[in-house]
Amino acid sequence: MSTRTEIATLGEFGLIRHLTQNIALKNASSVKGVGDDAAVLDYKDKQVLVTTDLLLEGVHFDLTYVPLKHLGYKSAVVNFSDIYAMNGQPKQITVSLGISKRFSIEDLEELYEGIRLACEVYGVDLVGGDTSASLTGLSISVTCIGEGEKGRIVYRNGAKETDLVCVSGDLGAAYMGLQLLEREKQVFNGEKDFVPDFSGKEYLLERQLKPEARKDIIQMLRDADILPTSMMDVSDGLSSELLHITQQSHAGCRIYEERIPIDYQTAVMAEQFNMNLVTAALNGGEDYELLFTVPLTDHEKVEQIKGVKVIGHITKPELGCYLVGRDGGEVELKAQGWNSLR
Amino acid sequence: MSTRTEIATLGEFGLIRHLTQNIALKNASSVKGVGDDAAVLDYKDKQVLVTTDLLLEGVHFDLTYVPLKHLGYKSAVVNFSDIYAMNGQPKQITVSLGISKRFSIEDLEELYEGIRLACEVYGVDLVGGDTSASLTGLSISVTCIGEGEKGRIVYRNGAKETDLVCVSGDLGAAYMGLQLLEREKQVFNGEKDFVPDFSGKEYLLERQLKPEARKDIIQMLRDADILPTSMMDVSDGLSSELLHITQQSHAGCRIYEERIPIDYQTAVMAEQFNMNLVTAALNGGEDYELLFTVPLTDHEKVEQIKGVKVIGHITKPELGCYLVGRDGGEVELKAQGWNSLR
Repeated sequence: MSTRTEIATLGEFGLIRHLTQNIALKNASSVKGVGDDAAVLDYKDKQVLVTTDLLLEGVHFDLTYVPLKHLGYKSAVVNFSDIYAMNGQPKQITVSLGISKRFSIEDLEELYEGIRLACEVYGVDLVGGDTSASLTGLSISVTCIGEGEKGRIVYRNGAKETDLVCVSGDLGAAYMGLQLLEREKQVFNGEKDFVPDFSGKEYLLERQLKPEARKDIIQMLRDADILPTSMMDVSDGLSSELLHITQQSHAGCRIYEERIPIDYQTAVMAEQFNMNLVTAALNGGEDYELLFTVPLTDHEKVEQIKGVKVIGHITKPELGCYLVGRDGGEVELKAQGWNSLR
Repeated sequence: MSTRTEIATLGEFGLIRHLTQNIALKNASSVKGVGDDAAVLDYKDKQVLVTTDLLLEGVHFDLTYVPLKHLGYKSAVVNFSDIYAMNGQPKQITVSLGISKRFSIEDLEELYEGIRLACEVYGVDLVGGDTSASLTGLSISVTCIGEGEKGRIVYRNGAKETDLVCVSGDLGAAYMGLQLLEREKQVFNGEKDFVPDFSGKEYLLERQLKPEARKDIIQMLRDADILPTSMMDVSDGLSSELLHITQQSHAGCRIYEERIPIDYQTAVMAEQFNMNLVTAALNGGEDYELLFTVPLTDHEKVEQIKGVKVIGHITKPELGCYLVGRDGGEVELKAQGWNSLR
């Protein structure tokens, strides 16, 4: 970046004003945004959904290869994804930042540019912001508020025996994108004139650096008149999320290896890295796809939705949770998902 | 602490389950708490207030002298304070933690104990939680959601000429408590067998370590049938907050030195530290008292509220914002408040 303006030149209030100026509120439920002790929202007869995420540098993101604009976009989108996963619509977000001296005002403008873009794409209002110093890098706390219709909010605990297990998009690509970035970083560290070659791997990078939330799937389910019996988004990995749904629904499940949707770039990378492809798809995480169950009677309707795949079914709880391999063998599902505390 | 259990023994999901188990939801608006992609709230005909705070170790708190239980209590209460400052009632909070390896499960239990206690005292439900690793100490992100009645929410921008400027409680004590703790820490660092003597200074420590939000004042204003024209809580210092209110209300103000409420312990400490008492009261911050304006016609009613003091009045904007000294001299108010980015 050519210009570097120190944050101290604006101060805390000046910085927030600078970053949040010209923000127009679009949603009817956004009564008052940035600039008071709290945001004011009016949800009338809708129910209110609230989700929050704390992202810390060095744990959740690595600024060596994540551009700040992408980081801002992703920080917002992963929270929208949680609201869609309740069959809701995200409407507002608040963003709090902890910033070390390493960052300039231009850096934060980049980050906010990404947040704004995500808000624009998904029709969300930024209604609160806060910045403070940090001793050690960047901390981002995002809270997203959304609306759900009474009786149409979908929890994790409603899956019933014989329900179909469905997943949107494809799995494992974001994880492969991360592996790719980590590898190039290591290569880069040893070699001065190294320029990473990502050609043919764009999809993996996009899935890792600029994920999207499946607003479209929520709309298509609605258009098809399907109300899932349970739903969540795949952030920690399919295995881990399936165990959440089955535990909370007091059920078991069978999913089929051959039905797990995987992009060919993911498969090629797994081959190159000598990794087990199914393991990556089951446990990779950060896919932000929707995992949901529908009654068996919705089979035909759900099969017709583009970008959704039926990967298995719900069973009695005593049958446990298993992946059925191509050879018919069964492997128990374990939560080996991404876990920053391990 | 006698026992130390490593967080790794529980893992991320285990930890959250452990910390949030046995949490019963008390408020009618809390439909679904911890355990899904988002919390579900039902505010019916009420408006929704949302505020959020990111607290970072070494910037916002120092664990050398802040007990974790107090930190938990304070983290929750300062957010409740923001909701009261809108003339609202806090109803739910979510808490996200970033935790370095230094912390044990027992440490986090202490922290949550404080959060729970605050929730109990103020009638708030804990509806969401999240924990992840941190490379560098403790990060706490709290979001508080509350309800406000349409038409009775009080913003910062409604102060009118001739309105009375009022403040609850007393000012500067939390700042003096901080100075005291910082001094004892320095002394302690040099001397091995040093036991700090805080006798006679309990109030200052309490104001710093265990502040309360002025729920009582909101209730008393309601009972007295007073709707403030503007209001905010004093977190950055009276001067800074007065400038927010007058800027947003396009007004000026005069406040009177002799009317600023100061506890005698604060005065004694300022003397000992050789600090200007009025400066400490104006700029100290972290008082979490309510600063508000009421129409002149409410003068008698507001004078009768215990714990509220009229400290000045609102003027035309061109008259600026000044403190009138005991000698009649005027000093312009400046935002020298606590600012972590300086």
